[in-house]
Amino acid sequence: LLSKLPDVGTSIFSVMTQLAQETGAINLAQGFPDYDPPRPLLEALARQVLTPGHQQYAPMPGLPRLRDAIAAKTARLYGHLPDPATDITITSGATEALYAVLAAVVRPGDEVLILEPAYDLYGPAVRLQGGVPVYVPLQLPDFRPDWDQVAAALTPRTRLLMINSPHNPTGAVLTPEDLDTLAALLRNTDTLLLSDEVYEHMVFDEARHSSVVGHPELRERAFVLSSFGKTYHATGWKVGYCVAPAALSAELRRVHQFVTFSVSTPTQHALADVLPLTELYDELPAFYQQKRDLFRELLAPTALRLLPVQGGYFQVADFSVLAPSVSDEDFARRLTRETGVAVVPLSAFYHNRQDHHLVRFCFAKQESTLRAAAERLARLG
Amino acid sequence: LLSKLPDVGTSIFSVMTQLAQETGAINLAQGFPDYDPPRPLLEALARQVLTPGHQQYAPMPGLPRLRDAIAAKTARLYGHLPDPATDITITSGATEALYAVLAAVVRPGDEVLILEPAYDLYGPAVRLQGGVPVYVPLQLPDFRPDWDQVAAALTPRTRLLMINSPHNPTGAVLTPEDLDTLAALLRNTDTLLLSDEVYEHMVFDEARHSSVVGHPELRERAFVLSSFGKTYHATGWKVGYCVAPAALSAELRRVHQFVTFSVSTPTQHALADVLPLTELYDELPAFYQQKRDLFRELLAPTALRLLPVQGGYFQVADFSVLAPSVSDEDFARRLTRETGVAVVPLSAFYHNRQDHHLVRFCFAKQESTLRAAAERLARLG
Ligand SMILES: CSCCC(=O)C(=O)O
Ligand SMILES: CSCCC(=O)C(=O)O
Repeated sequence: LLSKLPDVGTSIFSVMTQLAQETGAINLAQGFPDYDPPRPLLEALARQVLTPGHQQYAPMPGLPRLRDAIAAKTARLYGHLPDPATDITITSGATEALYAVLAAVVRPGDEVLILEPAYDLYGPAVRLQGGVPVYVPLQLPDFRPDWDQVAAALTPRTRLLMINSPHNPTGAVLTPEDLDTLAALLRNTDTLLLSDEVYEHMVFDEARHSSVVGHPELRERAFVLSSFGKTYHATGWKVGYCVAPAALSAELRRVHQFVTFSVSTPTQHALADVLPLTELYDELPAFYQQKRDLFRELLAPTALRLLPVQGGYFQVADFSVLAPSVSDEDFARRLTRETGVAVVPLSAFYHNRQDHHLVRFCFAKQESTLRAAAERLARLG
Repeated sequence: LLSKLPDVGTSIFSVMTQLAQETGAINLAQGFPDYDPPRPLLEALARQVLTPGHQQYAPMPGLPRLRDAIAAKTARLYGHLPDPATDITITSGATEALYAVLAAVVRPGDEVLILEPAYDLYGPAVRLQGGVPVYVPLQLPDFRPDWDQVAAALTPRTRLLMINSPHNPTGAVLTPEDLDTLAALLRNTDTLLLSDEVYEHMVFDEARHSSVVGHPELRERAFVLSSFGKTYHATGWKVGYCVAPAALSAELRRVHQFVTFSVSTPTQHALADVLPLTELYDELPAFYQQKRDLFRELLAPTALRLLPVQGGYFQVADFSVLAPSVSDEDFARRLTRETGVAVVPLSAFYHNRQDHHLVRFCFAKQESTLRAAAERLARLG
């Protein structure tokens, strides 16, 4: 049997989660909270599941009342009201949105620009379409894009550019000036934009989330993705969405109807019930900033060097003082097995497994979990 | 914007459902029940949603306890125990399983044999992979495969053959002899098999479901799909699965991890809770046979000629006596708008829109719904 992705193994997130389970390590590897969704949302879903008539296929693009609620939220936060009828599509998590956008627009031979480090599915999902991923490195130590390098990588065959802010794994955040620069770069091209904004509600300090939806020029060529799993501590519910102009959304929907067709009806109803409770997401930046600050404070005494984190729910740390000649993969395994804290090596986010002696911690955890992990990490010296 | 599927419009199921809603027609077009899932399942999900720790990512191939329960059910029904660790993958409905299998195994230029009429996503989903659908007609009036024609269509480039029993839209059912014939046909080829068995629990009269999983030779090259949405009257929950040998499942999972990654955790737990209640699916053949018999009896006085139905939850009817010179698409629209009963024209299941003067009714409806529809249809004469 010839494989179409011979070099793709099991995702690093599954591998490390399993290793954590086998070894009893505290799992700060895979990105998910160890607390439950807000009570009103849980109760809404329990209610919707028992609501007669809410258990059959939702409309293919998503439940109208959920799309209406997303449009209202988008207008409130980013000053642009997408048309729920044509511009919003509900998907099986942001993962399906990402995959379906690529399947909808990337043709064999098309180039797709990916800023690295990047979420591990970007490259393989492009290749499955017969597309050619073109990687542009983000610049250490703060992992900012070098827009001149992006400009140099753009060709007439660049079908799509993928950006991600707040950034997984590094926590870097794009600024309004970044978006302006990008808009100028793309102005006279046919290149489309995929903006992965699943951590939109986790931006700290003076930084603010600059959504592509709020950028009048960029949004005309963009698919903007978000995730209810991240926003509502419900990664296991698998509901995300894509906002894009009507013509782009139409292409996405052509594919979405064949990839999953539709998304859990009772879950969509429950999300529509709580989306108007704005405090549930308005309080997220403070909620996560506190976790970030606590985790950094707890880790400060160790020999891990903590890189800056402006957004998202991950902390990247440099271990080169501790283990200068150990690869990040070996260090991650060792940390999991011997220290009892599971992490992800950053090389997993590079197509060529580039090793900067960095590992990623997820701090979307209860205070007690973060303290327990820090206690173990203190043994590192 | 160049489309990758320029000729693909909105799925006929969405189109007819929307027309039904606009016109107040009884919707016998899209295949879904107008009754709710069994109470134990609803209560299981309401409970799982409120169970702490069950709201985050499920493992990528599916929850182990749900895969265990599927393995046990498969052994009980078809005499073969798949290995839950390697042979079973949970997907976002059988739709995602179908799409991910195609994305995993069909390479550009590969031929895929499709028996027509066929579910409307088969062809476009093959084409999205760069594959070439090759269509073989099922034989009217009973829509049986002509295995000689299938043999004649097989070439060294045939990567995959897609079969579907019980069959949507026609209700035809493959026999054990069909599977033996097929096994002999494929014996010295590298052609894989995709067996869409989502209506496995709806087989009537003397017919029995012949699962490819129960065929020792065929299952070695087969992806076998089923759907909890069909089995549990929960089409809106979007959980299905694929049983395939370890090497085939590994390829499916490589793609599944990028298409959706995983499926709703609380929903998987709820399904695992009820799958051991064998009566919930053991009673389905009788439950649906009664609906089929009632619907046929109610329609007998009309001038619609009812084709035989051995399985599934659809009734195909020939309207040529009533409207000999009207296309099936026009007849379906007229039936929806003027008679108040929405149906699907069978041409929607042919890549070239072949018109046999046939329309499809879904009889997965409450008795009162079927009676109300029949009353309206009686006006046809
Ligand atoms: C889909 S599992 C990966 C979760 C995640 O977003 C991450 O850990 O980066
Ligand atoms: C995914 S909507 C179509 C439902 C169905 O299986 C059918 O109507 O044939």
